[in-house]
Amino acid sequence: ESAAYLVDMETIEPIDRTDLPKYEPDLVISLGGDGTLLSAARAFAQTNTPIVGVNLGSLGFLTEVPVNELYETIEAWMQGSAVLDERSLMCAELVRDGRHFRTWDALNDVVIAKGAIARMGEFTIKLDGQLVAGFRADGVIVSTPTGSTAYTLGAGGPILMPQLDAMVLTAICPHLLTIRPIVVPGDAEICVAVDVVPHETYLTVDGQEAVELLLGDAIYCRRSKHSVKLLRLRPNGLFNVLRSKLSWGSR
Amino acid sequence: ESAAYLVDMETIEPIDRTDLPKYEPDLVISLGGDGTLLSAARAFAQTNTPIVGVNLGSLGFLTEVPVNELYETIEAWMQGSAVLDERSLMCAELVRDGRHFRTWDALNDVVIAKGAIARMGEFTIKLDGQLVAGFRADGVIVSTPTGSTAYTLGAGGPILMPQLDAMVLTAICPHLLTIRPIVVPGDAEICVAVDVVPHETYLTVDGQEAVELLLGDAIYCRRSKHSVKLLRLRPNGLFNVLRSKLSWGSR
Amino acid sequence: ESAAYLVDMETIEPIDRTDLPKYEPDLVISLGGDGTLLSAARAFAQTNTPIVGVNLGSLGFLTEVPVNELYETIEAWMQGSAVLDERSLMCAELVRDGRHFRTWDALNDVVIAKGAIARMGEFTIKLDGQLVAGFRADGVIVSTPTGSTAYTLGAGGPILMPQLDAMVLTAICPHLLTIRPIVVPGDAEICVAVDVVPHETYLTVDGQEAVELLLGDAIYCRRSKHSVKLLRLRPNGLFNVLRSKLSWGSR
Amino acid sequence: ESAAYLVDMETIEPIDRTDLPKYEPDLVISLGGDGTLLSAARAFAQTNTPIVGVNLGSLGFLTEVPVNELYETIEAWMQGSAVLDERSLMCAELVRDGRHFRTWDALNDVVIAKGAIARMGEFTIKLDGQLVAGFRADGVIVSTPTGSTAYTLGAGGPILMPQLDAMVLTAICPHLLTIRPIVVPGDAEICVAVDVVPHETYLTVDGQEAVELLLGDAIYCRRSKHSVKLLRLRPNGLFNVLRSKLSWGSR
Repeated sequence: ESAAYLVDMETIEPIDRTDLPKYEPDLVISLGGDGTLLSAARAFAQTNTPIVGVNLGSLGFLTEVPVNELYETIEAWMQGSAVLDERSLMCAELVRDGRHFRTWDALNDVVIAKGAIARMGEFTIKLDGQLVAGFRADGVIVSTPTGSTAYTLGAGGPILMPQLDAMVLTAICPHLLTIRPIVVPGDAEICVAVDVVPHETYLTVDGQEAVELLLGDAIYCRRSKHSVKLLRLRPNGLFNVLRSKLSWGSR
Repeated sequence: ESAAYLVDMETIEPIDRTDLPKYEPDLVISLGGDGTLLSAARAFAQTNTPIVGVNLGSLGFLTEVPVNELYETIEAWMQGSAVLDERSLMCAELVRDGRHFRTWDALNDVVIAKGAIARMGEFTIKLDGQLVAGFRADGVIVSTPTGSTAYTLGAGGPILMPQLDAMVLTAICPHLLTIRPIVVPGDAEICVAVDVVPHETYLTVDGQEAVELLLGDAIYCRRSKHSVKLLRLRPNGLFNVLRSKLSWGSR
Repeated sequence: ESAAYLVDMETIEPIDRTDLPKYEPDLVISLGGDGTLLSAARAFAQTNTPIVGVNLGSLGFLTEVPVNELYETIEAWMQGSAVLDERSLMCAELVRDGRHFRTWDALNDVVIAKGAIARMGEFTIKLDGQLVAGFRADGVIVSTPTGSTAYTLGAGGPILMPQLDAMVLTAICPHLLTIRPIVVPGDAEICVAVDVVPHETYLTVDGQEAVELLLGDAIYCRRSKHSVKLLRLRPNGLFNVLRSKLSWGSR
Repeated sequence: ESAAYLVDMETIEPIDRTDLPKYEPDLVISLGGDGTLLSAARAFAQTNTPIVGVNLGSLGFLTEVPVNELYETIEAWMQGSAVLDERSLMCAELVRDGRHFRTWDALNDVVIAKGAIARMGEFTIKLDGQLVAGFRADGVIVSTPTGSTAYTLGAGGPILMPQLDAMVLTAICPHLLTIRPIVVPGDAEICVAVDVVPHETYLTVDGQEAVELLLGDAIYCRRSKHSVKLLRLRPNGLFNVLRSKLSWGSR
């Protein structure tokens, strides 16, 4: 829905998002909000193409370029003076019946969560093969540093600076007192095994792509080989964005 | 599903839950877990019939009577020496198109929550007509003191002693920093208005009854006229149950 | 220090705070911030004298009357049209060597806390004689509903509406995962026993009066017989104050 | 107080802790609890000497070797089969009157906190020179991953895996809603400036060394050049220790 699509200048047809990288653009301009940019980022994840995240509405966590700075940003890029803010992606692999089922690259997060009227699920978390904990909860979020200001924040997670080489695991409404958000090194492997799967439990990638989970499914989260290059006029200031979007630090 | 049903001794037919109060029993024995008791409690909410919550498995927050104490508890009740633990119910009224749609009595909580793959909803909360806050979140929980050890706990809410005359409002994964659980007097009226309703947003009562919500719906939560009388052999000790069920206070 | 003092019109001498009630004023005007009002409130706790909390600086949680509304508020009071916002006080009794040592009335809270360079203390909490939990922590806060927006807030406590008849107990930096803020009925008795007392552990009342605690001391918190009558021009709106002072509900 | 001291075999005199490294031992054996090991770790921080943390009481976060495994651990070390668990240290520099005053290496954390009866302090936090936030609080903790299971945990911080190259900043009882724990890369520089210094505000290193702070002091926290090598028989399992010490993951 929040499609980042181009128009093929010869055929004047909109291009399917998955076909976008075939056109090998030098630069991608995402016009919209964070959702549009997340979508564009995953589409171009396997390329080195920089993305300009232009916000058409209010400042976004990812779309920091206001529309009136777009041309200045492109000029700066052409002159080599723009800032490339490289964000690491996380790779999530769904293993079903003991076999590889599918992988996704996520810029923000991978969420495993139950439906609105379902009972709680049961999850077992392992880190590099070692048991972290097993518990009942509405779900589990594995997030990149970039995603720590997104859904993870609502679930009580910490803020991770974007440059940190790490992932953070946060439970959603766990029915136990003895768990906390866990920050793990970027080269670790987090495994979330679905032990009890209520009606309508989904794996969601960046809040955009979803697949229904089955009993026995396991999701492995690791650092992706790919990354996203966000192009800006000036260096990023996470706390300026937090102040603007979440009243960070205000009384 | 977790039906508390009786058998009509004359017809040997199971009785529909909503018909149970018509038989005017002197005592209700709930055999199962907390879910079974929640179901029985709502069925008998408008009567004065005491309920014995027998747990067939592990100790429950509501079903504290182990099966081997059942007869002793009934004898104590007949001799008038059993303990009646009266728990207040909350009444939730759904107002649709500005008109009364339906009411429910809840022993634990009323949950307004989105589906697994939906975007966040937007809610406006009022207390006795005054604006509390408007925010985006996965949902909102309004809980009785009894329900403070149930779903509210996972959303970061405080523990309320069962005798407290109060309700507690807790947001589920709100995407803002500036909200906290709010404890209000029992005679207050909490209104949750659904401003933006994503796909598959539900109102759920005690985790058991559900109705899909529409844009513009408003849910009013007030103290119910009714209450539940839990029968026990001995006075209740909330912290003993918390220690047993949630490792409360342990290192 | 934040003294609410009057001048004796005959001797033109400032009056000691504890002597203030002897003059039996019809109305007390507190000029300053919340600290000044807390001090005045305790001084006049055993009287029925209403207090006007005028803020000389920014809006306070307790001092909601701006200086330019002072005369209008007094006139409204004289005409009987002002609003009396009655706030319950909490009575804290220090028991030392098994005997009554001293009592205080608190409008906000009673804090038991260690000094900056001390190790953690160990506390045992009882509610109406029943064990709540024993744990190591920097300290413990017992707060009135009025105090829930003060120190308790920083320790992660919930917001309690001022009219609620309740107290809330919150641990300060406890070194365990298995504790949560606990809201208890106003007629309950909370006992905090100091099991291990590090160097420089203090009992502090409303952040203003302090006494050093000794090993074996126990502090009993109960509803006070007294209350404070805050005089205002208009009814109080807690969430308006929260929005102004703590960016409540803002994104 | 919790001194890790040796006896000089020739003079049979106890050796001052700061002189310990001069004896250039091949191995340090810390007998006691986590406090003893923290003390030994700082004493040998500038050497490559491995430390065996033997717990004489219960399992510690740092002292995982039970006394009956001591000789086996030493034999494994001599045979080269023991596990070296390298933990990064944090370097805290106190700048007073704009000039270097003193530095410390910390294995767990650096805490800036006010005394028990003082008002809140005011702090400004910067990260690599950029403003994070300014706020009133009881204090601020800057912690290593190793220290995330110590004091930071009580202040609501996340768990950081020991191998993570990071620091975490957590406010102690901040009087605002708009702050969260922040995890920063190991090569970042956190600056905590003391804007308003109440009576008896202290900088404490690993809960053991303390210096009183003055108005205008600034504390810079960076990755230390040094590290601590903990010697064990087997690889470390953080979650096993968490389960044992904090009931981690238990219901």
